[in-house]
Amino acid sequence: MPTVRPLGDAELSPRAAAVFADIRATRGSDFVNNFWRSLAALDDAMLERVWGQLKSVMTVPGALDPLTREMIYIAVSVANGCSYCVHSHTAAARAKGMGAEMEAELLAIIALASQTNALATAMAVPVDSEFEAASSEP
Amino acid sequence: MPTVRPLGDAELSPRAAAVFADIRATRGSDFVNNFWRSLAALDDAMLERVWGQLKSVMTVPGALDPLTREMIYIAVSVANGCSYCVHSHTAAARAKGMGAEMEAELLAIIALASQTNALATAMAVPVDSEFEAASSEP
Amino acid sequence: MPTVRPLGDAELSPRAAAVFADIRATRGSDFVNNFWRSLAALDDAMLERVWGQLKSVMTVPGALDPLTREMIYIAVSVANGCSYCVHSHTAAARAKGMGAEMEAELLAIIALASQTNALATAMAVPVDSEFEAASSEP
Amino acid sequence: MPTVRPLGDAELSPRAAAVFADIRATRGSDFVNNFWRSLAALDDAMLERVWGQLKSVMTVPGALDPLTREMIYIAVSVANGCSYCVHSHTAAARAKGMGAEMEAELLAIIALASQTNALATAMAVPVDSEFEAASSEP
Amino acid sequence: MPTVRPLGDAELSPRAAAVFADIRATRGSDFVNNFWRSLAALDDAMLERVWGQLKSVMTVPGALDPLTREMIYIAVSVANGCSYCVHSHTAAARAKGMGAEMEAELLAIIALASQTNALATAMAVPVDSEFEAASSEP
Amino acid sequence: MPTVRPLGDAELSPRAAAVFADIRATRGSDFVNNFWRSLAALDDAMLERVWGQLKSVMTVPGALDPLTREMIYIAVSVANGCSYCVHSHTAAARAKGMGAEMEAELLAIIALASQTNALATAMAVPVDSEFEAASSEP
Repeated sequence: MPTVRPLGDAELSPRAAAVFADIRATRGSDFVNNFWRSLAALDDAMLERVWGQLKSVMTVPGALDPLTREMIYIAVSVANGCSYCVHSHTAAARAKGMGAEMEAELLAIIALASQTNALATAMAVPVDSEFEAASSEP
Repeated sequence: MPTVRPLGDAELSPRAAAVFADIRATRGSDFVNNFWRSLAALDDAMLERVWGQLKSVMTVPGALDPLTREMIYIAVSVANGCSYCVHSHTAAARAKGMGAEMEAELLAIIALASQTNALATAMAVPVDSEFEAASSEP
Repeated sequence: MPTVRPLGDAELSPRAAAVFADIRATRGSDFVNNFWRSLAALDDAMLERVWGQLKSVMTVPGALDPLTREMIYIAVSVANGCSYCVHSHTAAARAKGMGAEMEAELLAIIALASQTNALATAMAVPVDSEFEAASSEP
Repeated sequence: MPTVRPLGDAELSPRAAAVFADIRATRGSDFVNNFWRSLAALDDAMLERVWGQLKSVMTVPGALDPLTREMIYIAVSVANGCSYCVHSHTAAARAKGMGAEMEAELLAIIALASQTNALATAMAVPVDSEFEAASSEP
Repeated sequence: MPTVRPLGDAELSPRAAAVFADIRATRGSDFVNNFWRSLAALDDAMLERVWGQLKSVMTVPGALDPLTREMIYIAVSVANGCSYCVHSHTAAARAKGMGAEMEAELLAIIALASQTNALATAMAVPVDSEFEAASSEP
Repeated sequence: MPTVRPLGDAELSPRAAAVFADIRATRGSDFVNNFWRSLAALDDAMLERVWGQLKSVMTVPGALDPLTREMIYIAVSVANGCSYCVHSHTAAARAKGMGAEMEAELLAIIALASQTNALATAMAVPVDSEFEAASSEP
């Protein structure tokens, strides 16, 4: 029951169709998930901008490998309570090699952090001076 | 301005002192941060239980390396808005080798995920059938 | 799959029926959405109090026009991850004249703010003295 | 007590200095707040990208006026609990003309929405079929 | 570093002064905390409305005793990451008799719930039909 | 549409089956809800650890009665937006005696706290010195 109906391929504007072609080429798969179809329905320019940002942040080679990036994405999505994002990035992480042991460890860390986050907030723990930026900079 | 005053070493009960000794031995450092000092003030049994869980989840060898675990911890802490936890785990991740490039990539992923989480929620994007558990299980 | 079953018109107490009559009169529509039907099932007094507050905050003339109010409501609901509220207030904003361009801009701002919120929290950016209350008061 | 120390003007790279010059020109003010100084310390490329996105979303003329945009930004920042962002965008909204009456109305709507968000979540109110995307599309 | 400067007693309007008098009479204490002083600075009408609601919800005799009400308030405030509210309601709960054992149990439940909340969201656990409203209604 | 398919009784490992037997014995009921079935699918060790923690925190006699514990659990779950948890703990609280009046009061407190949390965050209310830990410690 979406607030914005995801578009089928036949309903795309030329600009959106170009983004979809890039999604397919980048991922090496014909499947384009509903997030992009909803953005296409909302606004072509936003579709282009968000995809460009995601492509850059998630697929350009860097210091973090692709699977680590997906697990970080899942962690944020769980903490923000975004069900769609949990589904899509869990699927993506599995496709990139997240096995059962890694998934269990990932969820154990997310669960632990959620717990200690709550405790630190409840006790209003004062930040240790050792954690100041100056002390960890050269 | 904490709600629970962190304890100094001289104020610890024997049970709490034993946990502090284990923290020091496990980390190979004399520094014990305020989170544990606050828990010691709150309840010895909880101190023991939370440390035991953190030690197990964060330090026992497994499928994820220690630095990846810290970055996942940071991601959850940022999304939950826990300032203390962001400070302590950023320091921990740097101590475990998170360089400037990795930190920038980590924050870029957290920022991107926060953005797409909001968009998916705002558009109430329907979960694609391809993301169902059944389709990613053997 | 609610935890509190929304009531039909025939199940209302006299007090709840009076609130429903005011909702219909205020909105000029016979449709009463499930939020009010659920509150009617939970507690007549809370139904009356919440409706009174919403009627006052959202419909009494003031400095902000009705559509701006609905867009602010959507922004909060997205950030809080309340799917029902996103649906109901998106429908309300569209009924009050939110066109496609406005909706795209609204979601772009929500997405941007979610992103910079995360970055400010992750970097623990210190508040500039220029932003203190004293400096922006006469 | 930041995790990333904000940079002074003398510490900027040429790329960051160019972004700062654009911030100053766009805003017609010499003041550059700590959020940008922290991003400059973290990563030049991210500074450039985030500023570019903010400039586009917040300053390019569109369907929503600048003050409405700032109020939506505040609403998201409050709901996400980002103290820095609440400070910076409250100051920005006041500079763009948010008077006392508007600010009171803004906070009343944010408070009301936070309350009804919680109630809708607690009662798991089922989404009315009237709020489906199909029914609000032509 | 507030965005709205809390008012001193000498700065109150007659309407705000009347609310302060009622706060003092209701609580049997001369101390009025900054939350009310900030609301007095923002808007007299909102001060009156929010205090009236809090007085009704928190102090009128009902099915829940005053200490239980404060602990529920703390639980929400921790989960929402509201540092001010955690401070004020922890102090209130202690003043109403929350001893060290109760506080430890309260925080243990909040920590546990935060953890299982995250796990349920991460696994997208389907709601059991046994938990439907119909099955728990007469 | 889960990301981890809940296991039926016939699919359990011996270790998971032992946990399920303890759940049934502790609760005096044959019904085991999907949360535990999902954890069983994810990781036996985590199932055992989380159940052990929940059993200890929620069922061992202490300063708080079982129903108060469930209501605190609901409060956290609503604020975290965990729909599954709201369903399961609302059912549990009703089974432990939460009547209609108590439920209405619980939700009124959650709604009020959500509202004042937002206001305190929006106004960045400074913490009163009276709420410091030192002043409430002996």
